[in-house]
Amino acid sequence: MKKYTELTKAELSALLTELEELYGEYKARGLKLNMARGKPCNEQLDLAMGMLDAVDSSSVLTAEDGWDCRNYGVLDGISEAKRLFADMLDVHTENVIVCGNASLNIMHDMIARSMTHGVMGSTPWAKLDRVKFLCPAPGYDRHFKITEHFGIEMITVPMSENGPDMDMIEHLVAEDESIKGVWCVPMYSNPQGYTYSDDTVRRFARLKPKAPDFRIYWDNAYCIHHLYREEKKQDKLLEILSECQLNGNADMVYEFASTSKVSFAGAGISVVAASVGNIAEIKKHMTVQTIGHDKINQLRHVRFFKDMDGVMAHMMKHADIMRPKFEEVDKILTRELEGLDIGSWTMPRGGYFISFDALDGCAKEIVAMCKDAGVVMTDAGATFPYGKDPHNANIRIAPSYPSLNELVTATELFALCVKLVSVKHLLGK
Amino acid sequence: MKKYTELTKAELSALLTELEELYGEYKARGLKLNMARGKPCNEQLDLAMGMLDAVDSSSVLTAEDGWDCRNYGVLDGISEAKRLFADMLDVHTENVIVCGNASLNIMHDMIARSMTHGVMGSTPWAKLDRVKFLCPAPGYDRHFKITEHFGIEMITVPMSENGPDMDMIEHLVAEDESIKGVWCVPMYSNPQGYTYSDDTVRRFARLKPKAPDFRIYWDNAYCIHHLYREEKKQDKLLEILSECQLNGNADMVYEFASTSKVSFAGAGISVVAASVGNIAEIKKHMTVQTIGHDKINQLRHVRFFKDMDGVMAHMMKHADIMRPKFEEVDKILTRELEGLDIGSWTMPRGGYFISFDALDGCAKEIVAMCKDAGVVMTDAGATFPYGKDPHNANIRIAPSYPSLNELVTATELFALCVKLVSVKHLLGK
Repeated sequence: MKKYTELTKAELSALLTELEELYGEYKARGLKLNMARGKPCNEQLDLAMGMLDAVDSSSVLTAEDGWDCRNYGVLDGISEAKRLFADMLDVHTENVIVCGNASLNIMHDMIARSMTHGVMGSTPWAKLDRVKFLCPAPGYDRHFKITEHFGIEMITVPMSENGPDMDMIEHLVAEDESIKGVWCVPMYSNPQGYTYSDDTVRRFARLKPKAPDFRIYWDNAYCIHHLYREEKKQDKLLEILSECQLNGNADMVYEFASTSKVSFAGAGISVVAASVGNIAEIKKHMTVQTIGHDKINQLRHVRFFKDMDGVMAHMMKHADIMRPKFEEVDKILTRELEGLDIGSWTMPRGGYFISFDALDGCAKEIVAMCKDAGVVMTDAGATFPYGKDPHNANIRIAPSYPSLNELVTATELFALCVKLVSVKHLLGK
Repeated sequence: MKKYTELTKAELSALLTELEELYGEYKARGLKLNMARGKPCNEQLDLAMGMLDAVDSSSVLTAEDGWDCRNYGVLDGISEAKRLFADMLDVHTENVIVCGNASLNIMHDMIARSMTHGVMGSTPWAKLDRVKFLCPAPGYDRHFKITEHFGIEMITVPMSENGPDMDMIEHLVAEDESIKGVWCVPMYSNPQGYTYSDDTVRRFARLKPKAPDFRIYWDNAYCIHHLYREEKKQDKLLEILSECQLNGNADMVYEFASTSKVSFAGAGISVVAASVGNIAEIKKHMTVQTIGHDKINQLRHVRFFKDMDGVMAHMMKHADIMRPKFEEVDKILTRELEGLDIGSWTMPRGGYFISFDALDGCAKEIVAMCKDAGVVMTDAGATFPYGKDPHNANIRIAPSYPSLNELVTATELFALCVKLVSVKHLLGK
């Protein structure tokens, strides 16, 4: 196949007519498909239905350390749930607090608390003239929404296969005391599916921030979301808490995770992991905010999964559902777009997303054309701070929710829209 | 029985010896009882066990408007849960947001948001030199902890059987723009068990606060927690949202409630009710903080209770467990203390607490002596802002958690400690 960038104007015009006709046919089908969000599909959710039987009216709802999960008490989670998450993140139980139904809520609250109370005695950020966060991008739109909501200035940091541009991060945090944090999805990153290299993690752990209240927001959302059963096809991430501690930076990182895409999205349990000092500080705030999170749901999770072996066995069933979808998207994009020089995409080994880069200036129109033909994608730009992709090139593909059949249709339409918009773009239209 | 205040020194001294001997006997028993917090007892929690069967692995977890409760989505609660709470609070569904496992968390977050973002466009409270809250007291310690945590200055407002001193509140809010809120437990108040009179509610609804961002924090925690089955023995509270609207103050109130003491404490669902304008503002913040609360637990609640008739039938079973406990405390206190002129107490018709007023200066020592003999009470002072009861007189009794037998022992010991400390006090010791 000849590269589109090497076609003559006449060839492009002929192609455009052909593609527009095809697009018209798709439009006529009245599709209604959604690849916008990283939502588990029904088949995945069905895997966890047994959890609803894990506690019932005949159960004794007493946690292993004697707490009645039906009553008040236990700020930081029942012991067995702490152990499950500690195992998942490869940290100690003293480093974790088990929270409510979403890690996003914890991240939001961590920033809200820093705004009103500062961090370990620092000036409350709300009292400072400027507060900045580093935002490796493309990244997770909901991270950026939180920082934007609190008026925190966002600085885009480029991503590579090994993680964010560490030269830039090292330089900026050492120079600028107003930089208080960095958003990271270190494993199977959203949306590219990259896993930070050991070197990147070590450089994070060795940062010398000018601000003592600088924190790494380590959103390890996809730490167990592999696509492949074979261990050698699974990414590995270096554990950051111990790396930070080794470098005298024990307090520099907050890690987050949840079972949102393990059990039920929105009805799972979540965790924050951090140094003993940070945990004490967080609990001091939590004791004002809540009497404790839902312990029955914590117990339900532990009784269903038993332990990390149980969780991983469960995740392999997820992998079997997700893998064909990712592979199908890759297959279609390869068949339709390879060699055309109008787009590139990632093929992650885990996580929930594939990242697509179109020709500069084309992303918004591609997404709009998909929508017009009945396929909703994540808004173009969403993967960058303030929703503004400087190249208007990046598009996030979320293959999880549609059925395999729907996914084929949606991806074929997407590839067609990429071609169509690229041809128009090359024709200067 | 002669009043202690009329006894001679010699009579008091003889009494002291006798009481100290009795106290020594209690101490020797090595009691371990707890009347500190408003925790439901096991028998009450057992009432809700059927809820754990309300959804199981064979259930279709689709809400009535089509949402799959197992997946992401629905910021403000599933329709059937909204309807249940709207019925409970006698408001419209458009006025409610169903939240997570505790209304305390909502209240905290409302104040946190006001600190960082202001209220409907007002200056963020964190940017103001002074922010004040009115605190009817005795009141709920966790309310006061929240305002203290955010550095909000607390002004104590005296309570009466009809509610807070409205002359004082009307005057203060009209004069002082830095007064941004007032904490209320309007029905079966914590700890006195008073229900605000219609006149009090109407005066609240007619307030003319100088601060446009002034809000009434209406914590209707005990709205359905009657002790008696007979309707004529149940308190009635005027619905405040409509009263505020009638007076052109639609946005002036946030109302809170939950099922914490209806289903499971810590594993219930909660609600905030407010004007359509406030609800829109809250949702704007929530959309950044969360993808939505636990819908499966919302569904579980609705499928178990069915509707408000189901909830009220359930609450009558609670009443049957709670009523004898309240009556037992009252009986013992009457038997032991009536006519002695060393203390008075409330006998509420609902809620979770009995409020006891000792002689001025005696509360701390009474609570300490109870503790020394193995009965934990709420810290004296906790019912006032900053944990400081200016009269050191008020003690909160929480009869719900102990069994009836334990409660008898605990209350008898308490009455003994009241006598003992009062006698010492009258002797000037």
